[in-house]
Amino acid sequence: MDVSRPAGAWCQERLRRSHSTSGWDIPDNAMNSSEARSWDSLRENRSRRLERAASAGIGREVPCDRIIELLEAVMQPGDRVCIEGNNQKQADFLAESLAACDPARLHDLSLVQSVLALPSHLDLFERGLASRLDFSFSGPQGARLARLVNEKRIRIGAIHTYLELYGRYFLDLTPNVALIAAQAVDARGNLYLGPNAEETPTIVEATAFKAGVVIAQVNERRETLPRVDVPADWVDFTVRAPRPNFIEPLFTRDPAQITEVQVLMAMMAIKGIYAEYGVTRLNHGIGFDTAAIELLLPTYAAELGLKGRICTHWALNPHPTLIPAIESGFVHSIHSFGSEVGMEAYVAARPDVFFTGPDGSMRSNRAFCQTAGLYACDMFIGSTLQMDLAGNSSTATLGRITGFGGAPNMGSDPHGRRHASPAWLKAGREAGGANATRGRKLVVQMVETFREHMAPVFVEELDAWKLQKAMGAELPPIMIHGDDVSHVVTEEGIANLLLCRTPEEREQAIRGVAGYTPAGMARDKAAVENLRDRGVIRRVEDLGIDPRDATRDLLAARSVKDLVRWSGGLYSPPSRFRNW
Amino acid sequence: MDVSRPAGAWCQERLRRSHSTSGWDIPDNAMNSSEARSWDSLRENRSRRLERAASAGIGREVPCDRIIELLEAVMQPGDRVCIEGNNQKQADFLAESLAACDPARLHDLSLVQSVLALPSHLDLFERGLASRLDFSFSGPQGARLARLVNEKRIRIGAIHTYLELYGRYFLDLTPNVALIAAQAVDARGNLYLGPNAEETPTIVEATAFKAGVVIAQVNERRETLPRVDVPADWVDFTVRAPRPNFIEPLFTRDPAQITEVQVLMAMMAIKGIYAEYGVTRLNHGIGFDTAAIELLLPTYAAELGLKGRICTHWALNPHPTLIPAIESGFVHSIHSFGSEVGMEAYVAARPDVFFTGPDGSMRSNRAFCQTAGLYACDMFIGSTLQMDLAGNSSTATLGRITGFGGAPNMGSDPHGRRHASPAWLKAGREAGGANATRGRKLVVQMVETFREHMAPVFVEELDAWKLQKAMGAELPPIMIHGDDVSHVVTEEGIANLLLCRTPEEREQAIRGVAGYTPAGMARDKAAVENLRDRGVIRRVEDLGIDPRDATRDLLAARSVKDLVRWSGGLYSPPSRFRNW
Repeated sequence: MDVSRPAGAWCQERLRRSHSTSGWDIPDNAMNSSEARSWDSLRENRSRRLERAASAGIGREVPCDRIIELLEAVMQPGDRVCIEGNNQKQADFLAESLAACDPARLHDLSLVQSVLALPSHLDLFERGLASRLDFSFSGPQGARLARLVNEKRIRIGAIHTYLELYGRYFLDLTPNVALIAAQAVDARGNLYLGPNAEETPTIVEATAFKAGVVIAQVNERRETLPRVDVPADWVDFTVRAPRPNFIEPLFTRDPAQITEVQVLMAMMAIKGIYAEYGVTRLNHGIGFDTAAIELLLPTYAAELGLKGRICTHWALNPHPTLIPAIESGFVHSIHSFGSEVGMEAYVAARPDVFFTGPDGSMRSNRAFCQTAGLYACDMFIGSTLQMDLAGNSSTATLGRITGFGGAPNMGSDPHGRRHASPAWLKAGREAGGANATRGRKLVVQMVETFREHMAPVFVEELDAWKLQKAMGAELPPIMIHGDDVSHVVTEEGIANLLLCRTPEEREQAIRGVAGYTPAGMARDKAAVENLRDRGVIRRVEDLGIDPRDATRDLLAARSVKDLVRWSGGLYSPPSRFRNW
Repeated sequence: MDVSRPAGAWCQERLRRSHSTSGWDIPDNAMNSSEARSWDSLRENRSRRLERAASAGIGREVPCDRIIELLEAVMQPGDRVCIEGNNQKQADFLAESLAACDPARLHDLSLVQSVLALPSHLDLFERGLASRLDFSFSGPQGARLARLVNEKRIRIGAIHTYLELYGRYFLDLTPNVALIAAQAVDARGNLYLGPNAEETPTIVEATAFKAGVVIAQVNERRETLPRVDVPADWVDFTVRAPRPNFIEPLFTRDPAQITEVQVLMAMMAIKGIYAEYGVTRLNHGIGFDTAAIELLLPTYAAELGLKGRICTHWALNPHPTLIPAIESGFVHSIHSFGSEVGMEAYVAARPDVFFTGPDGSMRSNRAFCQTAGLYACDMFIGSTLQMDLAGNSSTATLGRITGFGGAPNMGSDPHGRRHASPAWLKAGREAGGANATRGRKLVVQMVETFREHMAPVFVEELDAWKLQKAMGAELPPIMIHGDDVSHVVTEEGIANLLLCRTPEEREQAIRGVAGYTPAGMARDKAAVENLRDRGVIRRVEDLGIDPRDATRDLLAARSVKDLVRWSGGLYSPPSRFRNW
């Protein structure tokens, strides 16, 4: 039917009666038209998908060897598909099965998923099944992704930050089909997700309640579950995968690899930022820089009398390097995006600290943890590969489209925040002066001036600008914008960008801690000294830190084995991290 | 045990050995200490709470007349408590029961809940059971809340925007006890929430997975449920309330009360903003101004050829005034924070548009809808009671502490957003010039220059500043900050603040549409004319709109009865809105 009829009718009416006061009458066919029009096309379409599976004799419990049949039966060309790919947990069996489907039957699929980490994800594009991608993070596949984009075989809708993509799941990127991973399913079809709940509940809710199809790969079938994470009536099909879903230990850093430069930077961050602002609620990005801070809490920070005054509440994956701080009583609470391989038993044994279920295992939730990271944390501290002189940073470098994960979300100042905290208020006063009507989030970028292969971190122009052209994107893929960054920490000192009053000051503040990089060498020495006099730039000595104290002795753990000891044997590191 | 011992040991070591290279050894008692220390005090505490209920002979299914006994058994002085109070659904029976508990047994409770809408919520403070409040919205109780704050009987932690408070549930404001409302419980204890799921899943997840106690009031007990919204093992106790939980029809506006000035403003907004930016993804605040826009979509907007080009994807409660636009095919998708009284059958009959469950009823979710409103919407348009000349606005006026609900979240520019849309890019170019590295959210404030009792909306100073002193708050309770506002729409015209280059220009742009308010009369006429020449200010005639066309004839529905007709009889308005 012509749904524009009421308006059309109104226009004709209006032309005929010009400005009569009788007004426009609801056409008598208003009711009829709503009867005539189909309002449940999505459900009818869903029914047809399920009927195709049923007529192929496939029920709710799908035999492993019929999964491709199922996918080809319930999926359609042009479908919007989420193949659950988290930071850790991967629906790898379903991803490989989909990649093995017939491109003649399934094509022009649009992937809407946070992480593109498996080769099979990119096989979908190379084999001609999928053509469009909306995502957040690609990690190890970044180089291959860049190549496929250059070859015009992938059209990237956009790179999102996690929470942004989840928001779109409920607005304009709702999946037609969700392929998810669970630990176990019970006889009724309820799912248990184990410690890596991550984003499964979010994906399933968006898909199941907009007439989508939800297919779960499970590691085991059980009569009863330790707890129910996803109710049975939200899930259409379950298949027991031939092997447990892959989980990547992405958040484990070996203390043995932490350098004394990193120890020095960690001391500067703790004394110059954590202590000065009294940062109690925070998130740490992953990397050796922040791992060093975590390992200095029970030693250096405790000596400074900071226990209970900093780092009490965290939005964080269970980092093994945080074990000594937890055991030393620094940490009150941690809510996690996901879990970490080897930390299961330790987390389960520390329920006062972590969010765990009645069964004892952790319930992580990336959507809620990102929400806490955005609105409830006073500080985000992370690292980057490149930073320009406006403070814009990006991990997207030429030939690699890695995405940003949660960094843009947690590394931005949330203008909607209304609750105050000492750290937030102090940062707000520094940024806005005495008349500030709101506080500021602390967004700290911690980098050594040169990264591997002596590539300078500080550059006149980010690769992101060239990458934008290669991607044909509307904007350069900047991870964190300079105007959101509050501090830059390098081995040369701390630059407090909140205190900079002009773009020129900001540029010199950044050059002033850029060391011997070309950008650092090009500093205006007088301007930098002036910024130092004003406390915008602070050197190690300005912070009252003796560089000779910056030894690995300060690390509460200097090896993975030390972490195991700290955990009382509860932490069980993956074999690749065991050298004993 | 002394959890600081490792660090302490390290300090002594260090003093003794100064800068030896042997480093600091993990004290041999590291393992012992972790064994010695209790890590499950929260669970032990929870067990004691449940034991007290059990020893009183109260099981999972609580008789109505023993609810006070249960509350006094499982709750403790100083508890952090969330009494589910949504915009609509209220755990009213549990709230009244708690307010009837003995202040000698339960006191110093800290309320952490989004909405404080019931008299019983404030009775908790007057009767001495509760002393501290962290919330988002108080609505009808705003005046009484202000009085209790003045009397120092309530200490307000902070006023939050919804998503911000949810974030804190997982970081530093996790409830010890959650009192929630559900439609039905089955024999196993699973909950069905009906169309008003709202924030129940968020509250329960935060509480249940940090060893808290969850008590649900239900309207009915059923053998089986239409669908499961909350799994049984997340809930400790259920009580069948003597009457169904109260639901407030907060989002219903009677078209009969829409004035022709509001019709004119709606025409200006549609032609001058919606059409120019091509706004497809949006949220509407509640009020007659935005109701007028909703009712002009099938008529005026359709005549302008905007169907399919604006207002296709919504984060919105089911506003009855949106029915004609939905029936006319304007709307593709709506995800809702909560439901609306009387809209249940209509929503259930339009599954292509709304998110509904297998049972046909809506599944709303305030946390996810606010996330979509923050990160996936290109525009937020709402109203306010006061706006100053920097564009700061607030609904908090003297003697009333109402809170802001979702406005600060959706009415702010999310710096973490990375995906582009035409509307967002155009706004970004206007705000940042050609070199903008990101877009901008459209945040539109739509007000008549005078509100009821001829109180001017535009003021030199917000009441919020006086209110701050009265509340003893760190910052004035500003709802939306001026630097987040992109447009101000009044009956006098549209001011585009994105195009203002200085605070002075912004002030004159606002004065320039402030009409005959004192702030408007004090405008610099030359400056305002210059802004109009630059298109920063646009009058009705600049938009090519004939004010004579602004009649109620343009409204697709001019009464609640019209809305019922548009809905094909599916919309069933509450009696207070029926005059036939």
